[in-house]
Amino acid sequence: MPRKPTLTIGLIGHRFMGKAHSNAWLQVSHFFDLPADLRLKTICGRNRAAVKMAAQRFGWETAETDWLKVVADPAIDIIDICTPNDSHCEIAVAAAKAGKAILCEKPLAIDVPEAERMVNAVRRARVRNMVCHNYRRIPAIALAKQMIDGGEIGDRIFHFRSRYAQDWIVDPNFPLVWRLQSNAAGSGALGDIFSHIADLARYLVGDFREVQATMETFIKQRPLAGRDRRARRSGKVTVDDAVTMVGRFHNGALASLEATRFAPGRKNSLTFEINGSSGSLCFDLEELNRLRFYSLRDKKGRQGFREILVTEPSHPFMKNWWPPGHLIGYEHSFIHTVADFVIAVVTKAKAEPTFEDGLVNQKVLAAVAASAKLNQRVRL
Amino acid sequence: MPRKPTLTIGLIGHRFMGKAHSNAWLQVSHFFDLPADLRLKTICGRNRAAVKMAAQRFGWETAETDWLKVVADPAIDIIDICTPNDSHCEIAVAAAKAGKAILCEKPLAIDVPEAERMVNAVRRARVRNMVCHNYRRIPAIALAKQMIDGGEIGDRIFHFRSRYAQDWIVDPNFPLVWRLQSNAAGSGALGDIFSHIADLARYLVGDFREVQATMETFIKQRPLAGRDRRARRSGKVTVDDAVTMVGRFHNGALASLEATRFAPGRKNSLTFEINGSSGSLCFDLEELNRLRFYSLRDKKGRQGFREILVTEPSHPFMKNWWPPGHLIGYEHSFIHTVADFVIAVVTKAKAEPTFEDGLVNQKVLAAVAASAKLNQRVRL
Amino acid sequence: MPRKPTLTIGLIGHRFMGKAHSNAWLQVSHFFDLPADLRLKTICGRNRAAVKMAAQRFGWETAETDWLKVVADPAIDIIDICTPNDSHCEIAVAAAKAGKAILCEKPLAIDVPEAERMVNAVRRARVRNMVCHNYRRIPAIALAKQMIDGGEIGDRIFHFRSRYAQDWIVDPNFPLVWRLQSNAAGSGALGDIFSHIADLARYLVGDFREVQATMETFIKQRPLAGRDRRARRSGKVTVDDAVTMVGRFHNGALASLEATRFAPGRKNSLTFEINGSSGSLCFDLEELNRLRFYSLRDKKGRQGFREILVTEPSHPFMKNWWPPGHLIGYEHSFIHTVADFVIAVVTKAKAEPTFEDGLVNQKVLAAVAASAKLNQRVRL
Amino acid sequence: MPRKPTLTIGLIGHRFMGKAHSNAWLQVSHFFDLPADLRLKTICGRNRAAVKMAAQRFGWETAETDWLKVVADPAIDIIDICTPNDSHCEIAVAAAKAGKAILCEKPLAIDVPEAERMVNAVRRARVRNMVCHNYRRIPAIALAKQMIDGGEIGDRIFHFRSRYAQDWIVDPNFPLVWRLQSNAAGSGALGDIFSHIADLARYLVGDFREVQATMETFIKQRPLAGRDRRARRSGKVTVDDAVTMVGRFHNGALASLEATRFAPGRKNSLTFEINGSSGSLCFDLEELNRLRFYSLRDKKGRQGFREILVTEPSHPFMKNWWPPGHLIGYEHSFIHTVADFVIAVVTKAKAEPTFEDGLVNQKVLAAVAASAKLNQRVRL
Repeated sequence: MPRKPTLTIGLIGHRFMGKAHSNAWLQVSHFFDLPADLRLKTICGRNRAAVKMAAQRFGWETAETDWLKVVADPAIDIIDICTPNDSHCEIAVAAAKAGKAILCEKPLAIDVPEAERMVNAVRRARVRNMVCHNYRRIPAIALAKQMIDGGEIGDRIFHFRSRYAQDWIVDPNFPLVWRLQSNAAGSGALGDIFSHIADLARYLVGDFREVQATMETFIKQRPLAGRDRRARRSGKVTVDDAVTMVGRFHNGALASLEATRFAPGRKNSLTFEINGSSGSLCFDLEELNRLRFYSLRDKKGRQGFREILVTEPSHPFMKNWWPPGHLIGYEHSFIHTVADFVIAVVTKAKAEPTFEDGLVNQKVLAAVAASAKLNQRVRL
Repeated sequence: MPRKPTLTIGLIGHRFMGKAHSNAWLQVSHFFDLPADLRLKTICGRNRAAVKMAAQRFGWETAETDWLKVVADPAIDIIDICTPNDSHCEIAVAAAKAGKAILCEKPLAIDVPEAERMVNAVRRARVRNMVCHNYRRIPAIALAKQMIDGGEIGDRIFHFRSRYAQDWIVDPNFPLVWRLQSNAAGSGALGDIFSHIADLARYLVGDFREVQATMETFIKQRPLAGRDRRARRSGKVTVDDAVTMVGRFHNGALASLEATRFAPGRKNSLTFEINGSSGSLCFDLEELNRLRFYSLRDKKGRQGFREILVTEPSHPFMKNWWPPGHLIGYEHSFIHTVADFVIAVVTKAKAEPTFEDGLVNQKVLAAVAASAKLNQRVRL
Repeated sequence: MPRKPTLTIGLIGHRFMGKAHSNAWLQVSHFFDLPADLRLKTICGRNRAAVKMAAQRFGWETAETDWLKVVADPAIDIIDICTPNDSHCEIAVAAAKAGKAILCEKPLAIDVPEAERMVNAVRRARVRNMVCHNYRRIPAIALAKQMIDGGEIGDRIFHFRSRYAQDWIVDPNFPLVWRLQSNAAGSGALGDIFSHIADLARYLVGDFREVQATMETFIKQRPLAGRDRRARRSGKVTVDDAVTMVGRFHNGALASLEATRFAPGRKNSLTFEINGSSGSLCFDLEELNRLRFYSLRDKKGRQGFREILVTEPSHPFMKNWWPPGHLIGYEHSFIHTVADFVIAVVTKAKAEPTFEDGLVNQKVLAAVAASAKLNQRVRL
Repeated sequence: MPRKPTLTIGLIGHRFMGKAHSNAWLQVSHFFDLPADLRLKTICGRNRAAVKMAAQRFGWETAETDWLKVVADPAIDIIDICTPNDSHCEIAVAAAKAGKAILCEKPLAIDVPEAERMVNAVRRARVRNMVCHNYRRIPAIALAKQMIDGGEIGDRIFHFRSRYAQDWIVDPNFPLVWRLQSNAAGSGALGDIFSHIADLARYLVGDFREVQATMETFIKQRPLAGRDRRARRSGKVTVDDAVTMVGRFHNGALASLEATRFAPGRKNSLTFEINGSSGSLCFDLEELNRLRFYSLRDKKGRQGFREILVTEPSHPFMKNWWPPGHLIGYEHSFIHTVADFVIAVVTKAKAEPTFEDGLVNQKVLAAVAASAKLNQRVRL
């Protein structure tokens, strides 16, 4: 048996996503039989103390504060980008030029032109590339995809309806953090959470043909954060709080999507329902080990929404974990994502969603924003 | 104690809604202490045998086939209109001229001009008038209204999201019944079920300011019904199968509404969620005795969606039924509706939703249809 | 076509159960095609004013205060007994002697000897007899029975587990009403609600072989009701507050039953789960239009508890009501019960559960009480 | 700041529990700020190849096949016992003698005398000791404990009702594995899963006073496993398939417990409901991030079971993981367990549940088995 190759990882970003990705890179080898050994070499962040602590905690060999050095490191095979959105493009383009395989957090970029530059860069450099839309690899969602592809809800889809709802900024005294400022964040609920359900829509149903959207900023002024807070000064919120959209897919299905940070009680509630000609599927991220399935092919009088506990060895990713009935959590979606990315890198296969998918996602976001501004339908 | 007055009822229509209304007129006196005795005098329908059977079954004194005679009957105080939509206007205008109080099934009319004629007729005649949007009087929905009015979800509403989904025409071999032909039905899902959630939106949140909608007819040809069926001929479906809409209310809340007959597994699923500045409310018609309530005012760490079983004596309408925990069903919403209408007639109070509400509802439907056609926002 | 016979009803009792039965006798003809016309002749109760009001409200021709006269009335065909438990026996025996068909509220009697006298009386008189265990005729429960009989959960049952939980006497200041005194009520949770789940156990699984039980009275002294209350005197609670039981059925299945009035939040929560060799069924009275079904015969990886909305025309009793997805309530179980009783009376068929079933139920209650007292297993 | 001490771990057992514990020892330092550094030194198992692979996968320095060497290793501070039940006692006694802190999988031993020897051994040696009843440290269950201790469901508990249900041996062709043979496993559902809910009962409510139980082996003969299988020979099942129990706690509450491997559709379903004088709590392991709470102190008419999503930073253990609304899984309960054990070892505090708790648990199991055999109540 030939020895496995080793893939060396450099992770840029060390906060929420950096933690989720660090854990994924560490854990994946404990539960998955990968075609490569992984070496966690460098984690990079601007705050030296914080990044050192993250390195120590998750076992990265080096802590770095200059991402250019990480990209330039010839030992590194994979660059994983977990920084705020406005730096994705620059880092990814550099990493591509340096011949690295790239995993990039979503949304791919701050706008369509940036995303296009990134796509061009990875194409030219012929490097593996993937956007970390981790929810595609929640087992219940991967199972939904299998079932749709296998015709289990019929040969035609009528409706895709999804909502991603949170409630963390309902309080008008919640401060004006960078995520609420467009220069830093690009957009609000749109890029942060709507982008997830737009990706799932494409993954499960197909490409959008047209959209009509309404966007809203419910709280237009907020107290400044940090030191300015004590001065009781406030500033303008320059991103959207909520996005609602209806539209059509190319295959004729109707779409209804909504993202909001103003739904009290909905902490991280990503739900969807898909209605096809032979059945329906429903999912709720707050019950992520379940998939609800209704089949018109069940015997009459015995039909009903069936709650599949997606913990069987036959379900996507699950044979690597625990016996049936033992739940997995949020972080596992990242582990599955890096597992598939490693396989793609080793086997030189496409790692979906690719940067091209990320670009299309960005175009959907742009169309939604345009429609909301123009008050009319925008075609894609 | 003065003797109660007697109100005499004439019911026009004897099928699905005729059955629901007959039951309501019969049952209401068994469970509610009304300020009037009710006399069920005439039920009217075009099929003599069927209407006779209905009369006998529900204890109507007379079966009639000519609605003009019912309207002309001086003994009758209340005309209850349960006919197909295209005859509502003519009957209601005649009934108003005859000085009758009028309860009319929804949608009020086939279009806005008809609805305006009806409003003018009842205004001129100064007769009590009500549209039978029976879902307003499901106890859980009436409780939601009380809670919103009492500020229990805050002083501001951010989102109203509702779907009315059914699945009875998913099969492409389902025949081209009259409900799928625009000349008879006016519209499809729009008038039949979207009108219900548009009414609830207004009841619970307020008036719409603007809408953007997409409508679709998924199955465009269907086998003809009846005799033509055997000839295997088919005809064109001329109404919508599904409506999706986003929009705004005058108070700044966002709306997201959807009505469809193409959701396998959803038999009569009217759901809504309302998010306010202090909490949220959720409802599902397939669990109609429940209201889900999340309150940001609950103690931190103990917050959660709470399932109120709306069967307490303090809940709207419930003290008339059974002890706590004993469920009521669909038909009870009609009983509550006629109870309130009788009270309004006796006390000469407004019976909401009035024909004016029905007219506004009709305008919303028209705006939705216009937006779907024009592919742009339509203001109300 | 021969004219239908007319069956004349005399109802004894006019409170909670009297209201439920009055409604049932009235409503059944509106929705079911019975083989007899029904005449609601007499309602009987000790409080003249109250029984008169009940008669008027539900359309009984006569209000009576002496049940002997009702039983003696030659015009009456059916005696329906809704009085407190301690008078069931005397009335039923007299009614049987008078040749009446008898519907009797559960539990059949106050103890086994009484129940035996009742069984003997109806046997000797050869009159139709039925105990009103109305929950057997909730459509979802009747469907469960059909499915079990049809082998849909396999040829063998392993477990029957049921709980009937309420919370109306959790407050220690709730007064010592007659239901909490053994001379009037016989027993507490045992006869009142445990008897229901014991009946369902026999209906769905079969006869008990042995039981082991624990019973408890949590609050042993309570304030006296009524006038005595103001004197702040208290009295002894002489019935059980809760019953828990494990045991075996003759067919080898295990039983686990519990009845309690001390479960905050459980208003009228009768739940059961049955596990068979090929599947499971679950029911909850607070969601009475649903039956949950898990089938090991479903395709691997697609198995899950399926929520059957029991509102299809093919489901028991449902074709008489509304279209699929339209819920029915608690009171409908009584309507279905009297419908079946009327059919049994006309066709001279057995009306299950018969008084013999009621007697067996009483024996189960006695065995449970004995086991709790003796602290050992009691065989049946 | 003084340097943290290092604790060195030796893990004995490498299959299902070995995997869960390996992961816990690895992960705990990534997410918890422990008062010690952990060194994963030795993993031990009888199958050399398998244990080597486990060592490599989870980063244990050494793979060992002789547990005596692990216990004798002076470098090792903590012995973690994950072997089958029949070797717990011998290993633990040796480890105690060697002065090691001991974490032992449940049930503590094969019977009461063994458990007593283990308790004596750790007492004499004064070593930290803990039984791995990992479910105590599921955040929702730890929260339930906090709420009960804080009086949130009142000053008195009426009922504890729990079921642990699985379905993995419903198929009569499932082979006679060692878990179904009493010499190897001690008991069936009793020791394997009933022991978990007996522990939770004690944790949440208190000590048992008396029990009455029924046990059953539904499938009494099964095909032999492995080579014998091909010979189509079968053997006798010598353990219980299911246990049902009722009983009382010392504080007067009633208990109702059930464990079964014969509940189709229940994969790993541990549920409980606790009813107190002011409210109720419900939990389901298949939705382990949730706790349902009903409070009689909520405003009248607004009461309802509230679903607390136990993912807030204020909830036990959760501030170490992800933002609110992000779920954790089964394996996290082990991470929390070793975190608390490490703290107890460093601070020399009691690590509950201790071996004494394990002994009491064993006595409960013995009482249940005795009651089932004697068909009578057994006091504890």
